[in-house]
Order: sequence, then C-alpha cells, then structure tokens
Amino acid sequence: MGKTMLGPQTLIYPMLAFLVGANVDGKPNFMAVAWGGIANGEPPMISVAIRHKRYTLKGIKQNMTFSVNIPSTDMVKETDYCGIISGAIVNKTKDCQFKVFYGKLDSVPLIEQCPVNLECKVVHVLDLGSHSLVIGQIEETHVSDSCLTDGKPDANKIKPFVYTTAPATQYQALGKVVAKAFSIGKELKASQ
Amino acid sequence: MGKTMLGPQTLIYPMLAFLVGANVDGKPNFMAVAWGGIANGEPPMISVAIRHKRYTLKGIKQNMTFSVNIPSTDMVKETDYCGIISGAIVNKTKDCQFKVFYGKLDSVPLIEQCPVNLECKVVHVLDLGSHSLVIGQIEETHVSDSCLTDGKPDANKIKPFVYTTAPATQYQALGKVVAKAFSIGKELKASQ
Repeated sequence: MGKTMLGPQTLIYPMLAFLVGANVDGKPNFMAVAWGGIANGEPPMISVAIRHKRYTLKGIKQNMTFSVNIPSTDMVKETDYCGIISGAIVNKTKDCQFKVFYGKLDSVPLIEQCPVNLECKVVHVLDLGSHSLVIGQIEETHVSDSCLTDGKPDANKIKPFVYTTAPATQYQALGKVVAKAFSIGKELKASQ
Repeated sequence: MGKTMLGPQTLIYPMLAFLVGANVDGKPNFMAVAWGGIANGEPPMISVAIRHKRYTLKGIKQNMTFSVNIPSTDMVKETDYCGIISGAIVNKTKDCQFKVFYGKLDSVPLIEQCPVNLECKVVHVLDLGSHSLVIGQIEETHVSDSCLTDGKPDANKIKPFVYTTAPATQYQALGKVVAKAFSIGKELKASQ
C-alpha cells in the first residue's frame, strides 16, 4: 500500500461542529468551531482553537468565560451561518432565532435549541500562531430533557453532526454503530 | 423546552478515534485517543489529552514527537484493543499486525494500514489535572494512495469513525451528508 506525502496539514477526520458562545460588549454572539476537543478529565476541560481576530474571542477575553453548544442535525443551517458571517456585522442570535439562556455563570450565553450546552471558565489562552487555543474548565452541563432517556443523555436523540473536508467541505450525520467500545478489542489475542 | 443540569462533565458529541503512536524505549506503541483536535492553523498543530501514567506518554516525552493515525472502520477492533490494554504489558504492534513505517522524523512510528498519518513534534505539554494536553506541530501528512481521488484525500475512501458515549460507549461510522458547508447558511437572512 503506497502513501503520498501532502506536507504539513490539518487533515483529520472528522472534525467537530460546535457553536461557541460569548457575550461581546454585553451581547451574546456565537461562532462555529470545528477545531477543539476535550482537554482534561478531572477537572473536565475543553479546548477550542479560534483565529485571533474573531469577534467571539473578544467576548471570551472580556469575560474569561464561554459556552460550547452542540447543535443537532436540524440546526445545520444556523451552525453554518454562524461560521460564515461575523457578529461584528450582524446579530446572529436574532438571525438564527436562538433562544438564549444563562445557567450557573452570568456571562455565558447558552442556546436553548442546542441539546447539549457546556458552561466554561477560561483557564489558559495559548497563542499558537494563527489561532488562540482557549482552554476552559467545564463548570456546568445542560442537556435538553427531550434528549434524555431514563435521565441520561441519549446520542440518538441529540443527533450531533460532524464537519468533514477533502474533497468537499460538508456536514455529516453520524451513521451506523460499527462496534461496542471496550469490547470488540477483546477479540484480539494478547501477546503476553 | 426544559433542560437538566448534569454537573461538570466531558459530554461532547461525538468524540474522535485516533491512534496516537510513539516509540517507548525504542519500540513503537500505540494508544487510542478520543480527546483531541486541531489546535492551530498556521503552523498546523494538533492536541491530544493523555492520562499522565499512560505508557505512550512516556515515549512521547522521551522523543518529544508522536504520530496521529486515523483508522478506518475496518480497523475498529484494533483501535479498541489499543484503548483497552497497555503497551507496558503487551506488544500492540504485533497483536494488531500493524505495519509500522517512518517518514520525515526518525522517532515517529506510523501505521501503514491507517489511511491518514500525521507526524508531530511536541511544542507544549500542559498538565491540566488528570491529563497532559500534548500539543504537537504537524510536520508531515501521509495519505494512503488508495484513499486519494484525483490526488486529493477522499473521506468516502478514508472511512473514519467516531466514538460516542451516553447512553453506550460505541464507535459509529459517518452517516449521510446533511448539508454543504459555507453554503446552506446563506439561506438565512442577515440582519444588517
């Protein structure tokens, strides 16, 4: 099997599709973020990579807080919109008809329509070059009641989606379950 | 729509499924990592969160390099295996029949069977609590020739999968395309 070298690239599959929120000059704004992930277990932390000049980053730095809102497939249009245009130009909350609520932290706008919302306090901002890597401690997690089964979050109801690039930039739903985790691997024999 | 607060949790959907590799005491080892993501654009960087005592982290610190290998759905068993058992106990490369190759950097073991391989040089290691957040600059990207279409990476051939939790821990393939990115959002009217 041959390999082709493509040079240094941010080529991972898939990428995530979050709506990161912050109050900018006192008003809620949201941006689409594909670059991020869980950064720590205890205490729970998440990282998001944001280009320095982005309007939402201004709000994150003003309050040192932000939200991560996980949209479902029926919010793909709004998510894309939040990735196309700047909150410095339009009122995305209004244009997307987001119902904004606040939880434990005063300065963290959360989107009611998103099934999962994380409230985060900034613990680190790393300037890595083109982007700031913002690392936040997750202070509270909200899940829509309609996405719970027996009181637990249910991915089948949350219906998240991912962002993929190459060849096309697109959003994809999750597909079939290919295996149970911490289980199928046991079929391989260990060389002890 | 009501919301339920679940306390601070690492609850994002989905999570990724990477095989992170390093030479530990001179021998290649790989672990499954769900917590990570792109951390910077220019230069390209990636972050992975690894529990301090993990065997692979020892190798990363020895060489200050690591690899990120993106498995396809036909490697779900091997990926899960690499998340279940420690390389301190077994030889995962042998058990999984990984064909290991080296690219630009001498100390970065890459898995030939994985369609996408990133070679990374460590630029930061942050101790965030239970985990080290390892940030690496991507020095080279390898893609299997069989996963290229007209010389470009093709996600339909790469066939990545994701890791989801709650209610069950499982691996899921990518599903249908729900929208074109940087396109469907234009259907929303801007409040200028």
